[in-house]
Amino acid sequence: MDAAAFRSHFPVLDSLAYLNAGTDGPIARVAVDAAAAELRAQATEGRVHSHFERRRALLTDLRAAYAGVLNCDVAELALTTSTSEGIGGVLGGLGLGPGDEIVTSDSEHPGVIGPLLAARARGATIKAVPFKDVADAVGATTTLVACSHVNWLTGELAPAALKEVPVPVLLDGAQGVGAIPVDVRELGCAAYAGSGQKWLCGADGTGMLFVDAAFLERVSATRPGYSAFEDASRGLDSTFSAEARKLDAISLPREGVALSLAALELLTATGLEDVQARAATLAGQLADRLRGSGRTVAPRAATTLVAWEDADPEATRERLAGAGVGIRNLPGTPYLRASVGAWNDESDLDRLLSALDAAAG
Amino acid sequence: MDAAAFRSHFPVLDSLAYLNAGTDGPIARVAVDAAAAELRAQATEGRVHSHFERRRALLTDLRAAYAGVLNCDVAELALTTSTSEGIGGVLGGLGLGPGDEIVTSDSEHPGVIGPLLAARARGATIKAVPFKDVADAVGATTTLVACSHVNWLTGELAPAALKEVPVPVLLDGAQGVGAIPVDVRELGCAAYAGSGQKWLCGADGTGMLFVDAAFLERVSATRPGYSAFEDASRGLDSTFSAEARKLDAISLPREGVALSLAALELLTATGLEDVQARAATLAGQLADRLRGSGRTVAPRAATTLVAWEDADPEATRERLAGAGVGIRNLPGTPYLRASVGAWNDESDLDRLLSALDAAAG
Repeated sequence: MDAAAFRSHFPVLDSLAYLNAGTDGPIARVAVDAAAAELRAQATEGRVHSHFERRRALLTDLRAAYAGVLNCDVAELALTTSTSEGIGGVLGGLGLGPGDEIVTSDSEHPGVIGPLLAARARGATIKAVPFKDVADAVGATTTLVACSHVNWLTGELAPAALKEVPVPVLLDGAQGVGAIPVDVRELGCAAYAGSGQKWLCGADGTGMLFVDAAFLERVSATRPGYSAFEDASRGLDSTFSAEARKLDAISLPREGVALSLAALELLTATGLEDVQARAATLAGQLADRLRGSGRTVAPRAATTLVAWEDADPEATRERLAGAGVGIRNLPGTPYLRASVGAWNDESDLDRLLSALDAAAG
Repeated sequence: MDAAAFRSHFPVLDSLAYLNAGTDGPIARVAVDAAAAELRAQATEGRVHSHFERRRALLTDLRAAYAGVLNCDVAELALTTSTSEGIGGVLGGLGLGPGDEIVTSDSEHPGVIGPLLAARARGATIKAVPFKDVADAVGATTTLVACSHVNWLTGELAPAALKEVPVPVLLDGAQGVGAIPVDVRELGCAAYAGSGQKWLCGADGTGMLFVDAAFLERVSATRPGYSAFEDASRGLDSTFSAEARKLDAISLPREGVALSLAALELLTATGLEDVQARAATLAGQLADRLRGSGRTVAPRAATTLVAWEDADPEATRERLAGAGVGIRNLPGTPYLRASVGAWNDESDLDRLLSALDAAAG
């Protein structure tokens, strides 16, 4: 599929220079149609036995698809509502407390901060260092590293040296999965949490968590739902699955799962590698053009995020929204951030730069 | 609204004697339309700032609506994906371990069993007794009672004596909220978890958790998402809200929230008290007719569930599905279970009884 044909799947691009996939991706027409069909079927056919069979089939397909994206076994893949839920499931399930030290960076997303604060409330120590230093900060007292794969503020990559640290590494892959090639084996991480609704263009409330088979034994199910059980009819004699599904979200709606699955099928049919290569190229072009226009671009890697300094990011974001350009500001920082996907083209970058100039002028 | 007009809102009733709201309620046309409109808007307008503002407004409305149904303050109401998530949030957030004893019944749903097993894995003792004995089983070593408000297998009510026990009571209200009048003050419970998708006819993946303001101080956020924060831009210096939203589900999709809200507005406009009274009357009629036909109905109260013995519940459920009757069997028990709502009428009961006779004959 050529770039223009791919782009035409996303209605929002008809009216907006949509550069916000780092928050939520654009939704394809086929994806919203898939969700709407599942909704109508629930209303007309009822949510009886066949409804749950249909949902189970969609969940099975989504689990396999996500496992394919991360290059892990299906048994190592939990379906979640969000990256945050995956991070929380691992940090909560390790039973960390006094004597445990978690190394993290000083620029993590609230989806990591929240579970870290919960672990600290249970007695664990949090050691926050600059993002580039997370591997070097691991010491004799460290239990675990928990940090971003791709820094959500800047687009930097986690240090490659994380692969060599002698403790398990839990990666927040919210800006990784779908955006850049991810191979959890190659990364050498014990766990990797990702979002369905960002770079995979799925529904809000979908996500994934990889947990390495060996590490999985150490992660208890603290919020088990129906799919965590080996056999839920055994009451208090029940046991939980040994697979990652013991960490599944409790209730994922059929329509949302169908939306995320249809979106992923579109990306896969187009070729995820091509999609990612094109996005990286466009993002690099944007960074160059911003620098060329005299703006200060935050340090970044060959990812899909581009952040740059602005005197009043919130006001500029609002003015850009009025000009049909969808980006975000990052509260607590001097940055505006554009998320560049393969659905974008140079006209979107042109609109962003023109609107920025107009806002500055 | 008269009963026939109310019934006409639910398309599934055109083809099915739908008696399955104890699993998932019927979906009204207005509710599916509301969800579909929110989906289309996300695709065409993008998921930019205005998307999150719209979602926040819907969440605020849903929180207020659920608080109204349970008769609690908005600050005591967390929005969840399910009853199970609410139960797990409370049991997990209390930090129970060795020395803690949780009294429960021997006929709880997996949504209670799962979190109980997780608490047991952390060292707590689980004391399971017959449902009618849960109040009497509370002793000097008991920390908490966790059990159903309405027994999901039979339709019995939890003992009124629970109001007097000297420990906090956590109720699984999956078969309570929406089905029968619920007043958490009158029940005297510390926490009450309910479902959005059952008797309130909402989306899968919606639910609510009431936690009494005083008890809330003891329940830590173990899986905090964005709405748990007072101010998420403060990083590791952040604090969590003192309100129940610290226990909110991490990511609730806009379309699902809109569906549940539209469904609840329909029920409220019709009159929730009338809806509940009509359902209770119809359920009582069904129980009488089943007994009259020589069947053994499980002990029940004036609720909306009717369970009765069958020689092969799974096979009968399947045969009934073929005859256009939607009920469920209850694995591990001899029961079939019908869930009777105000959307049903006598023709649905007729179809059920005829189909049962045909299946038996």
